[in-house]
Amino acid sequence: MDINKLLKPNKIAIIGVSEKEGFGGDTCRNVLEYMNEDSYYFINPKREVAFGKKCYNSLVELPENIDLVVICTPQHTVEQLIKEAAAKGAKAAVVYASGYSEVGTKEGKEAEESLINLCEEQDIALMGPNCAGYVNFINNISPFAFISEERNRKGSVGVVSQSGQLVLSMMDSPKTKFSYAISAGNSSICKMENYLEYLVEDEYTKVIAMYIEGVKDADLFTRVLKKAAIKRKPIVVLKTGRSEKAQEIAASHTGSLSGADKVYDALFEKFGVIRVDDLEELMSTSLALATMKKIPENNNFASMNLSGGETGICADLGELNGINFVDFAPETLKKLDELLPGYATPNNPLDMTATLSYDVEKFAQALDTVMSDPSVGIVAIGYTLLQDIADPAIYYMSEGIERVTAQKNSKPVVMIPFTENTRNSEYSEKLEKAGVPVLPTSNYAFKVLKNIADFVGYDAAKHNIEVEIPNPSKGEGSVLSESESKEMLKEYGMPFPDCKIAKSEEDAIEAAKEIDFPIVAKIDSPDILHKSDTGCVKLNLNAENEVKEAFNEIMNNAQKHYPNARINGVQINNMVASGTEMIIGVNNDPQFGPCVLCGLGGVFVEVFKDTSLCLAPVSRDEAYKMVNSLKGVKLLRGYRGNKPADIDAYVEAIVNVSRFACDHKDELKELDINPIFVYENNVCVVDALVVKK
Amino acid sequence: MDINKLLKPNKIAIIGVSEKEGFGGDTCRNVLEYMNEDSYYFINPKREVAFGKKCYNSLVELPENIDLVVICTPQHTVEQLIKEAAAKGAKAAVVYASGYSEVGTKEGKEAEESLINLCEEQDIALMGPNCAGYVNFINNISPFAFISEERNRKGSVGVVSQSGQLVLSMMDSPKTKFSYAISAGNSSICKMENYLEYLVEDEYTKVIAMYIEGVKDADLFTRVLKKAAIKRKPIVVLKTGRSEKAQEIAASHTGSLSGADKVYDALFEKFGVIRVDDLEELMSTSLALATMKKIPENNNFASMNLSGGETGICADLGELNGINFVDFAPETLKKLDELLPGYATPNNPLDMTATLSYDVEKFAQALDTVMSDPSVGIVAIGYTLLQDIADPAIYYMSEGIERVTAQKNSKPVVMIPFTENTRNSEYSEKLEKAGVPVLPTSNYAFKVLKNIADFVGYDAAKHNIEVEIPNPSKGEGSVLSESESKEMLKEYGMPFPDCKIAKSEEDAIEAAKEIDFPIVAKIDSPDILHKSDTGCVKLNLNAENEVKEAFNEIMNNAQKHYPNARINGVQINNMVASGTEMIIGVNNDPQFGPCVLCGLGGVFVEVFKDTSLCLAPVSRDEAYKMVNSLKGVKLLRGYRGNKPADIDAYVEAIVNVSRFACDHKDELKELDINPIFVYENNVCVVDALVVKK
Repeated sequence: MDINKLLKPNKIAIIGVSEKEGFGGDTCRNVLEYMNEDSYYFINPKREVAFGKKCYNSLVELPENIDLVVICTPQHTVEQLIKEAAAKGAKAAVVYASGYSEVGTKEGKEAEESLINLCEEQDIALMGPNCAGYVNFINNISPFAFISEERNRKGSVGVVSQSGQLVLSMMDSPKTKFSYAISAGNSSICKMENYLEYLVEDEYTKVIAMYIEGVKDADLFTRVLKKAAIKRKPIVVLKTGRSEKAQEIAASHTGSLSGADKVYDALFEKFGVIRVDDLEELMSTSLALATMKKIPENNNFASMNLSGGETGICADLGELNGINFVDFAPETLKKLDELLPGYATPNNPLDMTATLSYDVEKFAQALDTVMSDPSVGIVAIGYTLLQDIADPAIYYMSEGIERVTAQKNSKPVVMIPFTENTRNSEYSEKLEKAGVPVLPTSNYAFKVLKNIADFVGYDAAKHNIEVEIPNPSKGEGSVLSESESKEMLKEYGMPFPDCKIAKSEEDAIEAAKEIDFPIVAKIDSPDILHKSDTGCVKLNLNAENEVKEAFNEIMNNAQKHYPNARINGVQINNMVASGTEMIIGVNNDPQFGPCVLCGLGGVFVEVFKDTSLCLAPVSRDEAYKMVNSLKGVKLLRGYRGNKPADIDAYVEAIVNVSRFACDHKDELKELDINPIFVYENNVCVVDALVVKK
Repeated sequence: MDINKLLKPNKIAIIGVSEKEGFGGDTCRNVLEYMNEDSYYFINPKREVAFGKKCYNSLVELPENIDLVVICTPQHTVEQLIKEAAAKGAKAAVVYASGYSEVGTKEGKEAEESLINLCEEQDIALMGPNCAGYVNFINNISPFAFISEERNRKGSVGVVSQSGQLVLSMMDSPKTKFSYAISAGNSSICKMENYLEYLVEDEYTKVIAMYIEGVKDADLFTRVLKKAAIKRKPIVVLKTGRSEKAQEIAASHTGSLSGADKVYDALFEKFGVIRVDDLEELMSTSLALATMKKIPENNNFASMNLSGGETGICADLGELNGINFVDFAPETLKKLDELLPGYATPNNPLDMTATLSYDVEKFAQALDTVMSDPSVGIVAIGYTLLQDIADPAIYYMSEGIERVTAQKNSKPVVMIPFTENTRNSEYSEKLEKAGVPVLPTSNYAFKVLKNIADFVGYDAAKHNIEVEIPNPSKGEGSVLSESESKEMLKEYGMPFPDCKIAKSEEDAIEAAKEIDFPIVAKIDSPDILHKSDTGCVKLNLNAENEVKEAFNEIMNNAQKHYPNARINGVQINNMVASGTEMIIGVNNDPQFGPCVLCGLGGVFVEVFKDTSLCLAPVSRDEAYKMVNSLKGVKLLRGYRGNKPADIDAYVEAIVNVSRFACDHKDELKELDINPIFVYENNVCVVDALVVKK
């Protein structure tokens, strides 16, 4: 399969041309509008011409071979047409028709299976079915089923989407310019992951904007994300499925398996992918990254505005969105003080006053001063560029901006408007040429700034940019007993209290003497999960007779409550002092493999949901980041005069659990370490449960 | 002072007319553009005409009396001109000049004081100084210093702003239509609060949009908010100052006292005021409320979209923003199933498929079906209305919308676009006429929906819509001892453990016998705050000799650590069982009076900041709302098999603390009850500290 024949064909044939509204007609309109006349053929046996261009009866009649066939006709015609196209040399097809696996019926699935077989047999790179086609803006190729406003869209944002409608919506975004816009549809042959790889490698594509509902090929997807992370090519993703409702919709929409949404958050964090919440944030983040002449050197912002009100808004939104407005250096403040009117107070965010916006020279000096501050990485100018220019400030400001951004050491600048308005195209283009993106209004703009800051702050070297994809499970699921679970974990350096399994009273007393009092006795059985609630745990045993009594009670209770349980005996554990109660968990995601969780135990995880996730393998840096992102980390750092807990040892334990999980990725389902006590100088696992697939 | 002479004058005079850019020239342009020719006079001794209109030499020369003088000239000319205007019958003035209290200098403050005295003497309703004037769109009066895009702006949103630049930015918002737009400036005579009152009473103003940095007249402000709450006239407020940086900026901008920001949140919640984060949210929330033909009957939303992708985005954003997409009734689902193509699954949010958007009849039926669902209060249609129509769907949809919204029982409808674009004006006006606001893109749109939902859900009857504004403090600040604090609170029904103050060993033993063991002994002194850390508390005393020993140790420790402390003796308390550890606090805000706080004690308040605030007087409903808004409320409701705690008694305690705080508003600075134990059937205060002003 050669994806180049699909996305960069020399000759294409459109089947089902029409002058009406709809897929066929709109594809023709797009092709006529953007493509070179001799790069495509129209085919419709019922017409001689369409839009003044000759229509052939069938593919056979074409005077030459083609690379790509674009099929606008219904499902039942598709396979025959693909065969004809293959005979005519085609190595690629775009199929709009729906009625395949996405409808969820047996017939639909079979139709898709059959189409896949045919394309594999004929070595056809298929886009779709159930897609809206694509546009290659670099080479002017536009087999695309929807019509958008007419404008020049050639640029450097590459789009891949699992929804055709959303490709259109992205193209409707009035300022973004594209290299490719691809509607992946059902991804039967060419998958979303293939398009992504193509765009990561494409030299014209500076930023990739994706809409996805789920991932089919987790291995290829993560390999491509890794490639992008190393190249530092930004990928911005809108993935629905945070809510259960959205997950249901995705399932019925493109039949995507949309997995646990939080795992995607962990995946994206690992590879430095920017995740956004809606289409406008997707487009404006991509636009900003594509327009800036270089990636900022650091993620400290400076903000300049024309009024105190707007400056205050920026200060608040900055804090709300986690933007760092760095303190200006004394030198910067001094220069600004000289430039600004007497009543103004230099600060960051800066109210430079409206006066400066009517003075090119002074405005340019102020911008240059702010930009030259050594701590500043990006400058955000607050100004509402309107569609119809009513106030002349933009004349002066844009000239000042052009002047300053033309300097060799210029840093990235963005413009933040305060009310929604399609910006004046003359000025927004002028600014774009100067590398200054005009962002959407402030709430979005600050999300975009945060996205840029996160991208700038991401360092692939601090992440283990791999995942451990498990093989499909064949097992039927089984739970290990506590002692079996511990045995597995001990090999990975996890510390446990001294423990022996006692099969009899005598065993128990012997074990207790060896281990030393105080003792905790617990049933050991893979079939008894709620040990405490059923009297199968006895704490704080301080004498032989207590141990003996406990042994008998536990065995009796176990037999009473779980008559059919397999019982290994009673664990005789040394009862350790209590430390800060933490947890470590693993959930083995069927697509992306083991995902490690950490957090404080008890109510903190259950009521406050204060946990942090990372896909395995977890690097030491990643583990520190996990722990530091907990709200409750303050409790570990030495709260109210307590001594700090041993965060290093806890991090070590997280990394060890990750190693364990990677080594057992094919048989592990879940691991639950709850609690692990963190002390001043070490940690100790008090309970652990391994569940196998 | 008659604010009507300021905002609805019959005749006005502009002083300092000019044809240049700047305040004078731009005011003339606005006046010429919008005002009736014989309603204003131009004055400039250096010109005969400006813009073809006669200029008078001075106010004296005018052929008739005026109501309002608009002074565009610098500060030093202002007082003389006001005197001349008063002589000419003027009862109102707009003063743009700056250089008054906002600059923070002694001269500036004195200049403002002098201006205030003059205006009071002459009974002049003054707008400003340091303002940008106003526009009365209802009567076409426009003494306003900035120029915006030309368009018809007459509508029903009333604007008051403490920043002139932001009034302009609001007018730049391309879809909103206004009744008044007022730049309050320094609010020396006519205050922001007066303008707000005017707009609350104004029949043409349906919604009020405000930008404020702080409040000068808390009493008038809250009285007006109360009036609006009772009338159910929506007030939407953008108040900066969430961040410290914004508070500094506000202080240097209009010299506003911007108080504790969280108190404003509590204030706005009490009176049902909608608080927003930026200008676009301010304008679009106001636009939505002004455009809808009626306030929705309930805050359940239905969402209808043209694609699965957009439907998924709406589902996620709905969850993120706390929007309730109600489950459709079986009848609704059945009807939709009949209307929709076979592959679509009816649900809320609904993917109605693009097919329906090309079919007026079916689209109207689908909208009508969704709207008729008895649970639905508002319908949100997801569709990106572009500036240049490329796709005909909007033809069909707008006709369908018009048809359905014209029905008698129609419910409010809003439209949600997915990418930023100044919407096609023909269609946005059509939709507006049908009562359908076109919102900004989805992230904003869902904030607007949440704002509407909150406004619809607000019930003034469930709030005590008063505040208790304290008189300015004369005291020097003093701390009460624990027993003194308790004495004050006991009168308000707060339950404490049995307690006696012992001055001697014998007293202590006697008290312990009366009270019953176990005993807690604590020092009682207004000067010893850190009792536990200095050995001034002894817990769990179970015998007379232990009490005796504790008494002596405590007295010794107190004398050792606090040699100068005033000591009342040692409190002998019954040691109560521990319950769920909660807190109740009061902070007496200098502007808005006592603000009551509740939350879980210990790490929950200190690390997780899980608290809730309400301005006193706190009603029972408000107290329940406070408690229910805590994340940790789960711990009270019976966590992991524990019995539920007595939330009623805790609520009672909150209300009692509020009563106490109101009665002592003039002398109370802070109250800190920490902890109050909540048991299964009652509560008990274990420690309390009153700090007086």
